[in-house]
Amino acid sequence: MNRSNVPPPVTRVLDAAEAWLPRRMAAVEARLSELLTGGGPTLAAEAGATLAAGGKRLRPMLVLVCAGDQAGDEAIRAATAIELVHMATLVHDDVLDAAPLRRGLPTVVARAGRATATAVGDLLFSRAFAELSRPPGNGSGRQVGLLAGASVGLAKGELAQRQDAFDLGIGADRYLERCRLKTARLFECACLIGTEADPRQEAALATFGVEIGLAFQLLDDVLDVTGPAQRTGKAVGTDLLDGTVTMPLILARASDRSLAELDLRSLDADGAAEVCSRIAATGVLETVRADARARVEHAKSVLAPAGIDARRRQLLTMVADGVVERYS
Amino acid sequence: MNRSNVPPPVTRVLDAAEAWLPRRMAAVEARLSELLTGGGPTLAAEAGATLAAGGKRLRPMLVLVCAGDQAGDEAIRAATAIELVHMATLVHDDVLDAAPLRRGLPTVVARAGRATATAVGDLLFSRAFAELSRPPGNGSGRQVGLLAGASVGLAKGELAQRQDAFDLGIGADRYLERCRLKTARLFECACLIGTEADPRQEAALATFGVEIGLAFQLLDDVLDVTGPAQRTGKAVGTDLLDGTVTMPLILARASDRSLAELDLRSLDADGAAEVCSRIAATGVLETVRADARARVEHAKSVLAPAGIDARRRQLLTMVADGVVERYS
Repeated sequence: MNRSNVPPPVTRVLDAAEAWLPRRMAAVEARLSELLTGGGPTLAAEAGATLAAGGKRLRPMLVLVCAGDQAGDEAIRAATAIELVHMATLVHDDVLDAAPLRRGLPTVVARAGRATATAVGDLLFSRAFAELSRPPGNGSGRQVGLLAGASVGLAKGELAQRQDAFDLGIGADRYLERCRLKTARLFECACLIGTEADPRQEAALATFGVEIGLAFQLLDDVLDVTGPAQRTGKAVGTDLLDGTVTMPLILARASDRSLAELDLRSLDADGAAEVCSRIAATGVLETVRADARARVEHAKSVLAPAGIDARRRQLLTMVADGVVERYS
Repeated sequence: MNRSNVPPPVTRVLDAAEAWLPRRMAAVEARLSELLTGGGPTLAAEAGATLAAGGKRLRPMLVLVCAGDQAGDEAIRAATAIELVHMATLVHDDVLDAAPLRRGLPTVVARAGRATATAVGDLLFSRAFAELSRPPGNGSGRQVGLLAGASVGLAKGELAQRQDAFDLGIGADRYLERCRLKTARLFECACLIGTEADPRQEAALATFGVEIGLAFQLLDDVLDVTGPAQRTGKAVGTDLLDGTVTMPLILARASDRSLAELDLRSLDADGAAEVCSRIAATGVLETVRADARARVEHAKSVLAPAGIDARRRQLLTMVADGVVERYS
């Protein structure tokens, strides 16, 4: 793993862990690189760019930390597979949104068109399950079921988001359900897939994953309102332009009635930026951030009572705090 | 399975088999229906239509016949999973081709748009692996590896087709390699995934699957040249308009030099129909059909020497002949 690309919170976790964690993260990175560059010229050119653009590798790190230092190579397979699914969804999301940039770089769809991007996403997705089927681990029903279940959730979340598009009447419950499907289930899967713990520990790790996943999404949605674009790699108000109603707007429309009467379909980029300013002016962004922080605290609080050992607790706490810090 | 929708060759196999095969095909159909109607309103509306449009269910039938009458419920799971992957690729292929019709009915992309169709394909794909992870079977590494490997092939084939698009210099070898990836690997997977045979039988079943898959694709490509549209559900020359160079054109350009100088990018529907007539006039379509028939004969010939029992041989022979008959 090239640390120069890695954000400080992740580096800090790597520094805090003994050698096993950086070594395993490097093994995941090497395997990802091998899979992406060995998959034919189009994949190497397109997905290779996605890989080079990096990303936080939060999900593989969760897999490895939750699996613990005693886990075998099946945890590395699972960590690789989960990042491949994540990459596949990024590539397809960009097709759906016709997004020009991701992490400040041109998306696969922008570089190579919809057709290639759809196929690249399918390839990454297939590779994920191929990875789980390799020995050791050998595609245990548990691992395949967890990853496939999370993938079903991702697709259902995407469909729900399309169904809800441009509908200003969407409520907080429906929004959170979408976040659970689109974001939190893959975090939950990451916390469970690397190892088989006792039921009490599994329940705690699942809660941890869901809560930091929701916090992650809430803060991401705040960032879409506040920018700055050079940090997010996207223009402010991208969600609004896609017709995606998120928590900031859901809360803001209660105090600024003019927001309840928006016609999202008629917004242009300037209009979206102006709506973002009005959302921010209501003060709800701090409410959403506070909700995200509370979820992170909840996530951290369930670990000790379930008997998760101090070493994993320390690392998971740092990961959780990193989710907040990145967006603060 | 509603037999009124099923083409004669498939019905004939069902009639020839003892009760176990129709019973298991019905179980696959019921499970597909359950998965597609239980996946939320968008999936029910969109993929439900795909299911209702039917299709030959050739791949699940291959799974069940190759697995034999002694196979357990894991063969039904595998047959369901392989049809889900097939459906997912149809939905994504239609996105890639912006196809208006499939089996004479509007495609998901035509009904619901690219974004929904991409997500519906992802959902079907995820469901396939979720299905393999259910007990019994429990996502054996072998089954997951076979299906994931075939899915990797499908995506690589699609990428190769995009890369080759509008390139009249594509040769027969490259074309066949694409057919192997895009079509034959899923047939091969269908022949292997339902059961674990001895290595000699596995090799024969793999050859059988690859050869009838290639025959299927060759005849499909002939049909794109000859039509009629009411039979294929697509206009004649659709491949040409997509820039997809197939065997009929590869062979025809050798005897009709004007075909070697085509500008595929400038073709409209009338121009494509006219090129189809010129391809047919060279007489190569019979050459391609003969190649397909020879592959089907080869497929049938490898079964007995490998010790595939007479009962399965009879049914597989009928399936193989059905592939030819459908297009004759």
